[in-house]
Amino acid sequence: MGEKIAVIGAGSWGTALAAVLADNNQNVRLWTRREDQAAEINQESTNHKYLPGFNLPSAIHASADLKRCAADADYILLVVPTKAVREITYQIRPFVDEHTVLIHASKGIEPGTSKRISEMMEEELEGIHYKATVVLSGPSHAEEVCERQPTTVTVSSHVMEAAENVQELFMNNHFRVYTNQDLIGVEIGGALKNIIALGIGMTDGLGYGDNAKAALMTRGLAEIARLGVKLGANPLTFTGLSGLGDLIVTCFSQHSRNWRAGYKLGSGNDLDTVLEEMGMVVEGVRTTKAVHGLAADLEVEMPITAALYNVLFEKKQPEEAVQELMGRVKKHEVENMSLLLGTDFNNIK
Amino acid sequence: MGEKIAVIGAGSWGTALAAVLADNNQNVRLWTRREDQAAEINQESTNHKYLPGFNLPSAIHASADLKRCAADADYILLVVPTKAVREITYQIRPFVDEHTVLIHASKGIEPGTSKRISEMMEEELEGIHYKATVVLSGPSHAEEVCERQPTTVTVSSHVMEAAENVQELFMNNHFRVYTNQDLIGVEIGGALKNIIALGIGMTDGLGYGDNAKAALMTRGLAEIARLGVKLGANPLTFTGLSGLGDLIVTCFSQHSRNWRAGYKLGSGNDLDTVLEEMGMVVEGVRTTKAVHGLAADLEVEMPITAALYNVLFEKKQPEEAVQELMGRVKKHEVENMSLLLGTDFNNIK
Repeated sequence: MGEKIAVIGAGSWGTALAAVLADNNQNVRLWTRREDQAAEINQESTNHKYLPGFNLPSAIHASADLKRCAADADYILLVVPTKAVREITYQIRPFVDEHTVLIHASKGIEPGTSKRISEMMEEELEGIHYKATVVLSGPSHAEEVCERQPTTVTVSSHVMEAAENVQELFMNNHFRVYTNQDLIGVEIGGALKNIIALGIGMTDGLGYGDNAKAALMTRGLAEIARLGVKLGANPLTFTGLSGLGDLIVTCFSQHSRNWRAGYKLGSGNDLDTVLEEMGMVVEGVRTTKAVHGLAADLEVEMPITAALYNVLFEKKQPEEAVQELMGRVKKHEVENMSLLLGTDFNNIK
Repeated sequence: MGEKIAVIGAGSWGTALAAVLADNNQNVRLWTRREDQAAEINQESTNHKYLPGFNLPSAIHASADLKRCAADADYILLVVPTKAVREITYQIRPFVDEHTVLIHASKGIEPGTSKRISEMMEEELEGIHYKATVVLSGPSHAEEVCERQPTTVTVSSHVMEAAENVQELFMNNHFRVYTNQDLIGVEIGGALKNIIALGIGMTDGLGYGDNAKAALMTRGLAEIARLGVKLGANPLTFTGLSGLGDLIVTCFSQHSRNWRAGYKLGSGNDLDTVLEEMGMVVEGVRTTKAVHGLAADLEVEMPITAALYNVLFEKKQPEEAVQELMGRVKKHEVENMSLLLGTDFNNIK
């Protein structure tokens, strides 16, 4: 039997990652709040709410008892909504020691504090020594991972040895894992792409075409990179799997909740109705709020985020917001890109 | 009446660009080889072969007489397949003088010589003085441009004043034009994205999912940038409209001929059958041949182009080629990206 790994959170992504680990013969325990869901996973090898129609590896042991899952785990992998990260991290404190590697696969920014997921985790684990925090991110619909379709993701950590260990845990023929030293860039790309996906969904809902979508995605990636660089990220990270790759998969797939929420907004529904209909967490909404504030504090121009913020929280009409975005006066392309990436054009030839 | 502009080539893109110019009250003459097509455009305001179902502005004057179109034009815009560029450029020599601005909106690389479109044009106009060559490129399906859907493109030239003049010709509320000084990068991005679109179509034809597509597109853009930088392009251009933007629109739309050709290949058809069924030029096929040779000469690693080349010209099975691509051993993401963009990570923080 392989490494002992506790996967905390049995939504679609947590369950899919548990399935990869089980395929790799790791000793995987999957925690869920709900007893009935744990029983379903153990007895039926299904998770009908989050992954309808899929059979899970029978080696996954699910439980609603956090201690049973995490007590002697070598690795604890958090896959929970951003707003639950602090609470759950606090709950696992008793099971974390100097041998533990923490992993997370959540994508968001905390409103108010503007903290990344790994920063929130570190704060909640203050005073405890543990090996490292590793983030796992990239273009990866859970459904395709369960089908064992080829998928590539990035892992990143300030402790490279821990990132490489996590790479080994997950790597197999259809699930390819790459390391990247830029923890900030990987977390920022994964979180902020949800904002752009909301925007792209909105333009689809309004009936705009592919030309407009391509332009918005291109500018969206630039605005993500602009903020990321200001926070200390490497601009190249945003051209990689956890930046561009994840942006593409999230903007072009009906699997994406953020795209779907944007689509409903563009089709004329208000935010409360949309969130109620979805019945699942739409990370992009809270991320938009967090990033809009952060961009103002750091004086970074983020027109797409601002447009989304106005639609979500200021009752601006989606049509008007998108028209403003498309009509922005900006005439020279590269000068703007250099500026926004914070680089001097002449230095990177 | 505005500027006198000859649009040479009445395929879907040439016709759509003529429509934008007519909307802007320019004096636009559209050349086509075929008398019957010219008559249809003039009498019915349609171009049923290339833009079925669309009504064109009645102000477009079409003709099969090159002299009538180009003789006193201030701007001559070439929109012809790459393999026709030399012949047509040679034919317009008599109508080019020191007042003429040449524009092109073609996307390809010449097999054998590895020349870009503007280089081929310059060679065919040797000995003649003219103002400048300007390229127009970006994410722009002709059909959406005819519907006046929001569209953004880039114009580029070694003579910035000429690029700005062309920007003014085309710019309106739904067709936004940006300038970029990096002519090489704009031409390379537009040409090489067709290779990646063939590859993405092939993975779709084989039944791969969105995770795999996102990974291939991400690596595809990196390999385009790698070659471009070696040829003198600015790496940032590839993150802009004529790079990433055009890649997105070409890989994700059923409008795209290159994607469709790739899809048919992935579904089990051989190249000859596919090209015969399409009945239109598929630029990506010749571009793959040209770029594969160029990459070898310049010692630039281009695994996706190589895989496509093997399928198109060496009878390799698409399935085998894609599996090899997905399984490539590459463990550290950013180191590879730095390397491939030819930049030093530490210099661009």
